[in-house]
Amino acid sequence: MGTEFLKIIDVSKAHNVVKNIFKRLYIPLSEKISLNEALFRVLSHDIHANMDLPPFDRSIMDGYAVKSQDTFGATEENPAILKLLEVIRAGSIPKKEVKVGFCSEITTGAPIPTGADGVIMVEFSQKNEEDIKLFNSSYPGQYIAARGSDIKKGELVLKEGTILSPDKIGVLSALGYSAVEVRSKLKVAVISTGNELILPEDDLEYGKIYDVNSSALYSALESYGTSPILKGIIPDEYTALKNAIKHSLEDADLIITSGGTSAGAGDVLSEVLDDIGEVMVHGISIKPGKPTIIGEVNNKMVIGLPGNPTAALIVLDVLMAPYLKNFSGYVAHSKPSDKIKLPMASRFHSAQGRMEYVLVKILEGQVNPILKYSGAITGLAEADGYIKISKTTEMILEGDLVEVSFFDDTIH
Amino acid sequence: MGTEFLKIIDVSKAHNVVKNIFKRLYIPLSEKISLNEALFRVLSHDIHANMDLPPFDRSIMDGYAVKSQDTFGATEENPAILKLLEVIRAGSIPKKEVKVGFCSEITTGAPIPTGADGVIMVEFSQKNEEDIKLFNSSYPGQYIAARGSDIKKGELVLKEGTILSPDKIGVLSALGYSAVEVRSKLKVAVISTGNELILPEDDLEYGKIYDVNSSALYSALESYGTSPILKGIIPDEYTALKNAIKHSLEDADLIITSGGTSAGAGDVLSEVLDDIGEVMVHGISIKPGKPTIIGEVNNKMVIGLPGNPTAALIVLDVLMAPYLKNFSGYVAHSKPSDKIKLPMASRFHSAQGRMEYVLVKILEGQVNPILKYSGAITGLAEADGYIKISKTTEMILEGDLVEVSFFDDTIH
Repeated sequence: MGTEFLKIIDVSKAHNVVKNIFKRLYIPLSEKISLNEALFRVLSHDIHANMDLPPFDRSIMDGYAVKSQDTFGATEENPAILKLLEVIRAGSIPKKEVKVGFCSEITTGAPIPTGADGVIMVEFSQKNEEDIKLFNSSYPGQYIAARGSDIKKGELVLKEGTILSPDKIGVLSALGYSAVEVRSKLKVAVISTGNELILPEDDLEYGKIYDVNSSALYSALESYGTSPILKGIIPDEYTALKNAIKHSLEDADLIITSGGTSAGAGDVLSEVLDDIGEVMVHGISIKPGKPTIIGEVNNKMVIGLPGNPTAALIVLDVLMAPYLKNFSGYVAHSKPSDKIKLPMASRFHSAQGRMEYVLVKILEGQVNPILKYSGAITGLAEADGYIKISKTTEMILEGDLVEVSFFDDTIH
Repeated sequence: MGTEFLKIIDVSKAHNVVKNIFKRLYIPLSEKISLNEALFRVLSHDIHANMDLPPFDRSIMDGYAVKSQDTFGATEENPAILKLLEVIRAGSIPKKEVKVGFCSEITTGAPIPTGADGVIMVEFSQKNEEDIKLFNSSYPGQYIAARGSDIKKGELVLKEGTILSPDKIGVLSALGYSAVEVRSKLKVAVISTGNELILPEDDLEYGKIYDVNSSALYSALESYGTSPILKGIIPDEYTALKNAIKHSLEDADLIITSGGTSAGAGDVLSEVLDDIGEVMVHGISIKPGKPTIIGEVNNKMVIGLPGNPTAALIVLDVLMAPYLKNFSGYVAHSKPSDKIKLPMASRFHSAQGRMEYVLVKILEGQVNPILKYSGAITGLAEADGYIKISKTTEMILEGDLVEVSFFDDTIH
């Protein structure tokens, strides 16, 4: 018994391994989806305008479409008086040409009639049957949004990588899109291993516990913008794990296993990977999460996480989230990248020699470490997130500012 | 022509109106959903543990389960030597009672056998066939997570209002939940009005434009945690609007209309509301968004937004998002509520006398106002969010810190 860690490395080296595997194996693909499913998906291509916007010369005020020359010098005392031709409402088509001495009533968004080159606001007008008094002059182009003045056909409108927030979805609608090409989600298989694990609907027999990692890792993977696939619980045993991995290779791009480390399942995974693939990393000098495995089978990454739910969630978040979010395109370009720093509520002694991650609860703006044994579920129930303590830090003092990673972060 | 604003009020008063309507009309309901659909949904009830956790006395180390008294005083030089009874792996059931002079090998997560009251780590042991040498002593309870020591049956585990982040979903799994009661989403009807509007799949006839607000408001409402229902485009006309509202009352809790203000559709909506319900607010002193209407029909709120997409999105975000997010339970309890403040890249003159909202783009950490006419789609294409300028502010100077509201914010 006891796990051998043949390839134990620092967390920064583990990051390099994951980064290089991503670079080598995972090429972003795209898929077409309906605009109403596109919220917070990520554009896979630049969007060039397929039309002029506005698509026609359009009034941007309620008022009167005129020949500017008819209004030059018009004032309150000396109004221009023009004959009304017609009323042009948004969505309708002008029927009459505006000639010298004439004007047409027009609403915001309506097409400018032929002959007119300006609009005078309704506030500067007075209507007497067919005579329209205008108390202000227009210059050529006044209150007209000319065809293509907003966006010209062919112009770059949204760049590849844009996160489709509601305003950007509006832009695509304006160009007549009902569907859009977005980055495909990475399909990630989630396998829980452990003879003690049972499904939620099962009866709780003596010696068994409910599987936590399937649902927790599934949700975390969803929040990183991937498409997780639950592969269920498998026994802590070579053939079962090999078959589950082979089966997962059929529909998943990446495989995450967790658990069973107590019975040396970390070793089982490394044995399986040795036989059908390769182990790159076996052991990372972090707490929790030391027995983590990084491997590869058939050009797909396989990650072995600890069975302890807190450790599994934290290692996934620390080791994989940056690359998974980056692949999903979940990178906020606009916001400053400063993480939230808050003061410690009390001092905390850290395990030296390993990078340590500690669950914390925020109370009145202060960071309270949660001191439970690492398998405790209450830790997760109480935590808002976790803090990272470098391997050379012995102690954090009360009031020291620490960076908090929150479990409910998505894009940012 | 020209819209009458009979009930024009300040934005702070409009907030009070909306807040009071919410308090009066909208009582949170709950629904049961699968745990795998529960990411970032909000608990509608307190969760009390339906079982002890761990459900049995459990080893938290790999090692040997012993009677502590057999190991008192054991050292490297003077080990305790015990006879091995059996190997108890996680998920299996101990078969033998540990009596004086005996021990059982045990893995992390396995049940503590009857008779044993402590565990000695495998690191402090040596196995010689049936004889186990133990080089360290155990105290009663060492490395045992007693039944209920993590969570006791009946204990409050998660509070109503908890946002179900991956860790909290894990906690529910640990208690055997496969489904959970969460807050129901508010059903919000989205109606676009305007004779000039066409659907994305339609041919672009002269004088028409593609409807932007249906998809943009739909997505924004989704991001606030509501369940939007698209009601399509209706003509800018009394009977059509009345029918659309009546139809929406059948399946929606709240109705959002937009558009048509140019042809006095703000008035059409207020006429409809006067006839079948009530207008509370008609006009808010904000820019953009002055013609906004707040009304009520059959105990359901009806909001009339401007047709201009930028104005519609901003007014929805400013006026409605706080209450919709609050109803959804999208309130981050843990994080400091400070918004992100960034310096202005250049000075900006504001319209006095009205609260003003200005689209901005963040470049190199600086806030750049986007100076386009308010109907321009490029504004939305370029914007990262918007800033708010109070009605008494004449000018913001270069370098002044301003608070930015981002369009891609969800929970926070």
